[in-house]
Amino acid sequence: MTRNQCLELDRADPLASLRDLFALERVDAQHIIYLDGNSLGVLPRAAIGRIREVVETEWGVGLIRSWNAAGWIDLSQRIGDKIARLIGARSGEVIVADSTSVNLFKALNAAVAMNGGRRRILSERTNFPTDLYIAETFARDRGLELTLVDHEAITSHLDDRVAVLMLTHASYRTGRMYDMASITRAAHDAGAIVIWDLCHSAGAVPVDLHAAGADIAVGCGYKYLNGGPGAAAFIWVHPQHVARMDRERWRQPLSGWLGHAAPFDFSPAYEPASGMNRFICGTPPVVSMASLECGVDTLLAAHEFGGMDAIRRKSIALTDMFIALIDERLPNDAFKVVTPRESSQRGSQVSVAHADDAYAIMQALIARGVIGDFRPPDILRFGFTPLYTRFVDVWDAIDRLTQVMTTGEWRDPKFATRAAVT
Amino acid sequence: MTRNQCLELDRADPLASLRDLFALERVDAQHIIYLDGNSLGVLPRAAIGRIREVVETEWGVGLIRSWNAAGWIDLSQRIGDKIARLIGARSGEVIVADSTSVNLFKALNAAVAMNGGRRRILSERTNFPTDLYIAETFARDRGLELTLVDHEAITSHLDDRVAVLMLTHASYRTGRMYDMASITRAAHDAGAIVIWDLCHSAGAVPVDLHAAGADIAVGCGYKYLNGGPGAAAFIWVHPQHVARMDRERWRQPLSGWLGHAAPFDFSPAYEPASGMNRFICGTPPVVSMASLECGVDTLLAAHEFGGMDAIRRKSIALTDMFIALIDERLPNDAFKVVTPRESSQRGSQVSVAHADDAYAIMQALIARGVIGDFRPPDILRFGFTPLYTRFVDVWDAIDRLTQVMTTGEWRDPKFATRAAVT
Repeated sequence: MTRNQCLELDRADPLASLRDLFALERVDAQHIIYLDGNSLGVLPRAAIGRIREVVETEWGVGLIRSWNAAGWIDLSQRIGDKIARLIGARSGEVIVADSTSVNLFKALNAAVAMNGGRRRILSERTNFPTDLYIAETFARDRGLELTLVDHEAITSHLDDRVAVLMLTHASYRTGRMYDMASITRAAHDAGAIVIWDLCHSAGAVPVDLHAAGADIAVGCGYKYLNGGPGAAAFIWVHPQHVARMDRERWRQPLSGWLGHAAPFDFSPAYEPASGMNRFICGTPPVVSMASLECGVDTLLAAHEFGGMDAIRRKSIALTDMFIALIDERLPNDAFKVVTPRESSQRGSQVSVAHADDAYAIMQALIARGVIGDFRPPDILRFGFTPLYTRFVDVWDAIDRLTQVMTTGEWRDPKFATRAAVT
Repeated sequence: MTRNQCLELDRADPLASLRDLFALERVDAQHIIYLDGNSLGVLPRAAIGRIREVVETEWGVGLIRSWNAAGWIDLSQRIGDKIARLIGARSGEVIVADSTSVNLFKALNAAVAMNGGRRRILSERTNFPTDLYIAETFARDRGLELTLVDHEAITSHLDDRVAVLMLTHASYRTGRMYDMASITRAAHDAGAIVIWDLCHSAGAVPVDLHAAGADIAVGCGYKYLNGGPGAAAFIWVHPQHVARMDRERWRQPLSGWLGHAAPFDFSPAYEPASGMNRFICGTPPVVSMASLECGVDTLLAAHEFGGMDAIRRKSIALTDMFIALIDERLPNDAFKVVTPRESSQRGSQVSVAHADDAYAIMQALIARGVIGDFRPPDILRFGFTPLYTRFVDVWDAIDRLTQVMTTGEWRDPKFATRAAVT
């Protein structure tokens, strides 16, 4: 493998032209290789103009009238419909609102309401912390039991005590990806409802919630969906469950006014909206929502080039190459690839452990312009976003990592100090 | 009273120069008189550049590094500290996060935790719907009782059954404002905790939470704080309660990762942050937060001109004048001022009832460029925002309302059709 071969792969890449959808000129000019789109996606070019329009015209001139005239009031549903196309859901089934954490809280309440009587929430020990934190307090407040096991032990713990299985489809830490359909089937066989966290899979890998028979899913707008820092999150619930919610007039606990059946009647009594609108709570952050829409549009733009399947093919090629180059160029540097080498079990990231020095090595690598991130205790994490990550970026990232190790520059004490956010 | 006298008042207004802090050129060019800043504040001029900077440089170029380098991680606290100065709170006591509705949910959980044993939540029948909706479901889920009474009956219902009194300081509907200190004292005498919703008072009237001995407050960023559509909300809890929460390691139910004691340790077990940080849940919408900071800054800019006291003096002068002109110029048009004529009981709005035709009259008035809003069943609502509302705006608004009534143009059927948002 040579750098020229990588350039050749980029020339042949059917998705290559999509990189122009992003405002990367200044990033490229600084020779930054950004492998952290799994933490914060890059800026879609369209978002620059769209945000200016929302702020300077819709807010600045349209003012309150823009709730109708500019369609702000429909943003939750409109963007939800677009996300639906990326995750195997249908129009009207996805709502954009609040944060992933808040939506997980709604999801847990919904799951337990749909599957009352059982007392256990089952999850994976290394699930993303916010999932565990929300579930831990929820279980405590409701007198339920949160059971955390290793990923290999999930299916063997599915029994008639489990009300809810709550999993992240692709692990933030290792990049390991569950087989959504088979795990869901196993959970259903045990009578459990499954909540899938798609934070690291929506926009990263093909997801087909209906084909998998999934029950509930939540996900994040600011990672692979490129929605901007702190972009709103989404929630999907299978229409069969929603139909039952409608029959039972079920309400989620965050029963804010925009989830009311008739919010602008200002009636004193709560009546949940029908369908997914019941999962809306308060007024959405319009500017952040507009930015999220531009981010989702970058993924929908891949449709004519093969869509999520083409993105997946390139993602596997990029991550395969990254793993191969680690093996080839850094055989003696104590790096251990913790992401599955079997591509079907891998999301769109590669995590590499380095027993004692992962933090300092990542800081030294960032100083050389390769932005990944560190996750405790020992993980260097690299995200691959096929809409804008090139094969040559993989080559150059490994090349610079090799330089960091060869020079030993990561031993500089300045790289040992932990920043607030890492 | 003449229009020239109004122009004279504007020339003598010590706050007049602050109007330049807002990007109102295009609004003015359209001869729009905006009396809906109580629903959505106008665009601060500084927000235009600040949002461009956040989007195009901090996100676009800084990318993930901006969580540290651009201080995104401290936005909740930094903007909270600024809001604190407007509501009689101290540094470190206010957190910006989520929506008002979500913060009310946290507030109710905190109040009941601090005052367990009692079973009643007392509120006002015409409180803002989202407050009632959140409280209704909370009470239902927790086996508590929500009691709604008329505002005159609040104090007589304060007895040893009341755990929490939840009130909006200034009513969204009538503009009536409670005496926060005396109501809080009465509630405390009865052993109840008070949650104040400041949505229509933060930035609108002087608020002194510590002087009033208040317990918990929440409020909105997009009304008088000019934070932009759907801007994040805030929550304040008295430090004595927070100290007890620290001792008891109390956690609110939305225990997301950014409210953890050490979020970037990614530990699987939840440990609430100390102090107010425990009230943070998920990742904040950074762009909307940046915009909110610019909005709050417009109010802090009034400091050298007399601050909230000067804003209050002008607010009373504006609303007094509006009421006087309604009486003088529309005596035979069936308008009834429902906002208290006693200025100490009035927020910064005037609500006018018109038995059958309020909706159509408001639409016709909007068509003439005076933007207020309609609230069911019969209220025309006008907000006065002293940083940018002029005395001549009051004159012209009443003048146009007089024209709407004289011509009878509001009877045009096109004004009878309700839009999605009204």
